[in-house]
Amino acid sequence: MKINGEAYRTIWLNDDGWRVNIIDQTLLPFELKIAALASVEEAARAIKTMQVRGAPLIGMTAAYGLCLALRADSSTPALQNAVELLTSQRATAVNCHWALVQMARSLLPLPESERAAAAYKRAGELCDMDVETCRKIGDYGAELIKQKAAQKNGGVVNILTHCNAGWLATVDWGTALAPIYMAHDAGVKLHIWVDETRPRNQGAALTAYELAQHGVPHSLIVDNTGGHLMQHGMVDICIIGTDRTAANGDVGNKIGTYLKALAAKDNDIPFYVALPESTIDWTLSAGRDMPIEQRESTEVTHIYGQAASGEVVQVRLVGEGSAAVNYAFDVTPARLVTGLITNRGVCQATREGLAALFPDLV
Amino acid sequence: MKINGEAYRTIWLNDDGWRVNIIDQTLLPFELKIAALASVEEAARAIKTMQVRGAPLIGMTAAYGLCLALRADSSTPALQNAVELLTSQRATAVNCHWALVQMARSLLPLPESERAAAAYKRAGELCDMDVETCRKIGDYGAELIKQKAAQKNGGVVNILTHCNAGWLATVDWGTALAPIYMAHDAGVKLHIWVDETRPRNQGAALTAYELAQHGVPHSLIVDNTGGHLMQHGMVDICIIGTDRTAANGDVGNKIGTYLKALAAKDNDIPFYVALPESTIDWTLSAGRDMPIEQRESTEVTHIYGQAASGEVVQVRLVGEGSAAVNYAFDVTPARLVTGLITNRGVCQATREGLAALFPDLV
Repeated sequence: MKINGEAYRTIWLNDDGWRVNIIDQTLLPFELKIAALASVEEAARAIKTMQVRGAPLIGMTAAYGLCLALRADSSTPALQNAVELLTSQRATAVNCHWALVQMARSLLPLPESERAAAAYKRAGELCDMDVETCRKIGDYGAELIKQKAAQKNGGVVNILTHCNAGWLATVDWGTALAPIYMAHDAGVKLHIWVDETRPRNQGAALTAYELAQHGVPHSLIVDNTGGHLMQHGMVDICIIGTDRTAANGDVGNKIGTYLKALAAKDNDIPFYVALPESTIDWTLSAGRDMPIEQRESTEVTHIYGQAASGEVVQVRLVGEGSAAVNYAFDVTPARLVTGLITNRGVCQATREGLAALFPDLV
Repeated sequence: MKINGEAYRTIWLNDDGWRVNIIDQTLLPFELKIAALASVEEAARAIKTMQVRGAPLIGMTAAYGLCLALRADSSTPALQNAVELLTSQRATAVNCHWALVQMARSLLPLPESERAAAAYKRAGELCDMDVETCRKIGDYGAELIKQKAAQKNGGVVNILTHCNAGWLATVDWGTALAPIYMAHDAGVKLHIWVDETRPRNQGAALTAYELAQHGVPHSLIVDNTGGHLMQHGMVDICIIGTDRTAANGDVGNKIGTYLKALAAKDNDIPFYVALPESTIDWTLSAGRDMPIEQRESTEVTHIYGQAASGEVVQVRLVGEGSAAVNYAFDVTPARLVTGLITNRGVCQATREGLAALFPDLV
């Protein structure tokens, strides 16, 4: 997708042919800074510090992190250490594990001397696959939006989304936002309600930024607002992403998703979850067992923003006498999910629905 | 209640005997500044700019605003103009109207020369009544908390609250927090989950500050977190305030309340609303007709916080290309409310429940 009219992916090889370029997403929307990762440690840190985030992009950064590791040491123990390091940075997203399994599977049979080059080739393929996967999610999801537009006789379709499941969360296109971009590009009139998504505000910082860059009409709202909008007929569809989907259709996603799903159910509004197959954890029978990452309390007590001077600064939001607790994700029970928009089509959020679309993976 | 060990009310007469002292709540928790209001226009501005906020305190500020108006001009047209000015500052809270009706009722029959002095006397009485009202709410609500503590065999009772319905929202004690203070003072072990309550963060800025000053254990959370906590058994009771309660028990309160009520229902957790009788709008048959205030979009796009230098600054949270929408309140349907904790006892959130407690007001 484009930033200031120029096409970008979120991760790509540097001109030197080996370092890995990323957009430092902790600085958006205020500064567009490209960082070049030169070691597996730097890749792990980029995941940990959320310079890259979004389940699919975490997976691709891990894949390239493994390339950087093998470039330094292509032995099997080094490969295994790198996999362990990269997997341990974030608890909830499962795509990281998925990507590293794909990588290891193709690399371990090779002689050490061939592994680094093969790793770069495979990581590039996985990135291209991710783009294609998101394109398909976009196609299937756009159909749902077009149906709603037809029901409204071409009136504006109001879509609520939470956090950022846009192209910045993947390699390109996004998951939840891919259908929105495709419907918009096809001429469907849209208006997107963008939850700011405290504590890290990826809605305000990333989704609003993406939509503004692409020219999709949108309004920023605080996370508290979605219920009121739904009560008053101001939301036609909800579309969100997911960091890990259990085999029964329970959906792990950014904290607060569950509350929006409850409101959608209470007001009879379709609530869709968009995901690539790499997000499905077939080993997890239900969402209650999903690991939920707890992050630093300073993400709650402090916030980053742009001062009048233009400088991006951190400010404190609460008095010194108060501590904070910071769960990063919650689990939305499948019973609240209208459907899963996957790269193989739309299915019910049930074991049977997923199994019918992915008989080869169950 | 106390700040740094010193007892305060939120509104009181200045030593000069006529100006009205308030705590400028826009500067908390970072600075404790007392402002002296000297005219009805200053009182109206204090309400509008939210130097004072919380439905009961808005009412008391309006009452004293009328005193300031009558001190300058005690004619009936001046009184009526002042009532209109004060009522028009905030749309949703009904206590302002209630307080001004109480004032006007006692003042209009008097000769002009006696009105100003009588107004100050009546405003003082209303403030004392508010304190007594909140004390009763606290007594009734504390019983519910004690019952839960007994069920937990003296284990810690976890209570979730939204926004600030503490003593800073009233003259003293608070509504939703009064039961918490009384249970805490009675030795019940408590832990309070404090929703930060975007966009104005009155949870982070005021509720956390109050609880810290009073020594009640608490943790700040983002508004997105309550659902996850409830799913995992980490919330025993929710207690919130209200800005206007319809005659059928539908509850208008700070935006986001509805989402927490849905989560409480979904997880079978009691959801109580604490209110003085002045908050009940007997003319409003259901919540759907409640006026919902829309506020400046800058409250969403920007936030105040304390920089490392100690200075309180405003920072921007979103790129220039994105607009924001800011609804201040939502309505929680009575079907989601376990009970109303009023100054006359606890009742069901129904027309019949309210009528049984307030037969003289229906």
